[in-house]
Amino acid sequence: MPEQMKDKSFLRDIISARKTVLTIGLDTDSTKLPPVVNGDILSFNKAIIDSTRDACIAYKPNFAFYESLGSKGWMILEETINYIGDRHFIIGDAKRGDIGNTSAMYATAVFDQMGCDAITVNPYMGEDCVTPFYKDGKWVIILALTSNHGSSDFQQITLNGGKKLYQKVMQTASNWGTSDNTMFVLGATHPSEIQECRDEFPDHFFLIPGVGAQGGDLDAICTAGLNKDGGLFINASRSILYASNQSDFAEMAHAEAVALNNIIRPHLEGKMKIS
Amino acid sequence: MPEQMKDKSFLRDIISARKTVLTIGLDTDSTKLPPVVNGDILSFNKAIIDSTRDACIAYKPNFAFYESLGSKGWMILEETINYIGDRHFIIGDAKRGDIGNTSAMYATAVFDQMGCDAITVNPYMGEDCVTPFYKDGKWVIILALTSNHGSSDFQQITLNGGKKLYQKVMQTASNWGTSDNTMFVLGATHPSEIQECRDEFPDHFFLIPGVGAQGGDLDAICTAGLNKDGGLFINASRSILYASNQSDFAEMAHAEAVALNNIIRPHLEGKMKIS
Repeated sequence: MPEQMKDKSFLRDIISARKTVLTIGLDTDSTKLPPVVNGDILSFNKAIIDSTRDACIAYKPNFAFYESLGSKGWMILEETINYIGDRHFIIGDAKRGDIGNTSAMYATAVFDQMGCDAITVNPYMGEDCVTPFYKDGKWVIILALTSNHGSSDFQQITLNGGKKLYQKVMQTASNWGTSDNTMFVLGATHPSEIQECRDEFPDHFFLIPGVGAQGGDLDAICTAGLNKDGGLFINASRSILYASNQSDFAEMAHAEAVALNNIIRPHLEGKMKIS
Repeated sequence: MPEQMKDKSFLRDIISARKTVLTIGLDTDSTKLPPVVNGDILSFNKAIIDSTRDACIAYKPNFAFYESLGSKGWMILEETINYIGDRHFIIGDAKRGDIGNTSAMYATAVFDQMGCDAITVNPYMGEDCVTPFYKDGKWVIILALTSNHGSSDFQQITLNGGKKLYQKVMQTASNWGTSDNTMFVLGATHPSEIQECRDEFPDHFFLIPGVGAQGGDLDAICTAGLNKDGGLFINASRSILYASNQSDFAEMAHAEAVALNNIIRPHLEGKMKIS
């Protein structure tokens, strides 16, 4: 099939049309599947995707959950991504990063082999670890301030001169690409920092994990982070995937997505001037 | 087969017996194979392993090179690791790290599915990203100061109070485990920092990449880093794997390993008081 360029204009179009920035994390855990799918992860993923296509702009497969099953898991991951198709943005949540020749191999894996549109990258190893992920038409999503408790260990540490490490990461990394190929991860548990980052980076998209199971406040995030293009990917995983353990799991996943969208939509209509 | 506990005493035994701390990085690149193997990565890896078993203590498969081939690559990786056996330490060079439930999945992938003895972990996301990798009998190898140019971007930045970030990472992370289950990555391109880290952490093993293609000085590293247990894994990848492009590639890989060992051995005999 012809490949769809998933640039900022594509993102603005699907956000305007679906009136959401909801992203569904495919962190599919084989031990949490409803009994009705008989342990078939691929069928579960397809049912979730079919029921939520109109209610989200992106899917974010979490590579760890597939790798935990070995090469069989990688096959399920490949088939899941193929099934998503070209009307959604696909974020390979792989948190990769290594020396240049190795990052280039990870880029081949996630973009060329898997067909993702974006990859999450860990910036600790610096510029030559991140830049091999820049490929035509692809996006690099750099970890800045993550949603977990451990984000205080290093990301929020104060540097000589007064900045926090995550601020230095964002300022440095924003020179490696542009707002047309670079995004940042900011955890939903940090709404005031999201506001500060939005003020400093008005045009960058931010990926916001941590809504739902991790406790982020959706209204506060929308107020702090949305911009004229939408500007966010707000991710929910567990609250949608495991909304029901019965045969209605796909319907209930859709209902949970709609409930989140009902919170997101009014904020988005205001910021994007759509209605 | 019964599983061999690969603890510090196992490491001391194989280091004393083989009189080396050489580690061979299995960064096997399908575009660089000698024509004689007809593109068969698994056969190439097996030939390299067979020819170098007596000349190294560890193999370090680099996950990126296998992932770049998709699920087929993961199958080759699984078979390669199975082939190494229990007389060598196996380092899964995967540079993983994510929120707790996701790191736990990566640990399952690398330890339980793949059977590695250790994994390289990126500490940027902090304690709850690293601790899920601690499992009985397994080792966590935390990135501190890497060999690449980009290590100056963040790892060597000065914090409020005067420490460098990589020093803070080592001090903090050394409290998450002990020298019996935790190691640090220090690039071969930083011998004077390796000396300082050895002074501060006399009992930890360090994984030292960057010898050979990346230009690290082997004598300087041995002087700076070896300790009474050996205390290092000195990794070489490209210089060994691609020592020859002819049918003698495995012999020449062995010869290259022996040449490195001839430099390492006298240092090791002095530090470990063996001969």
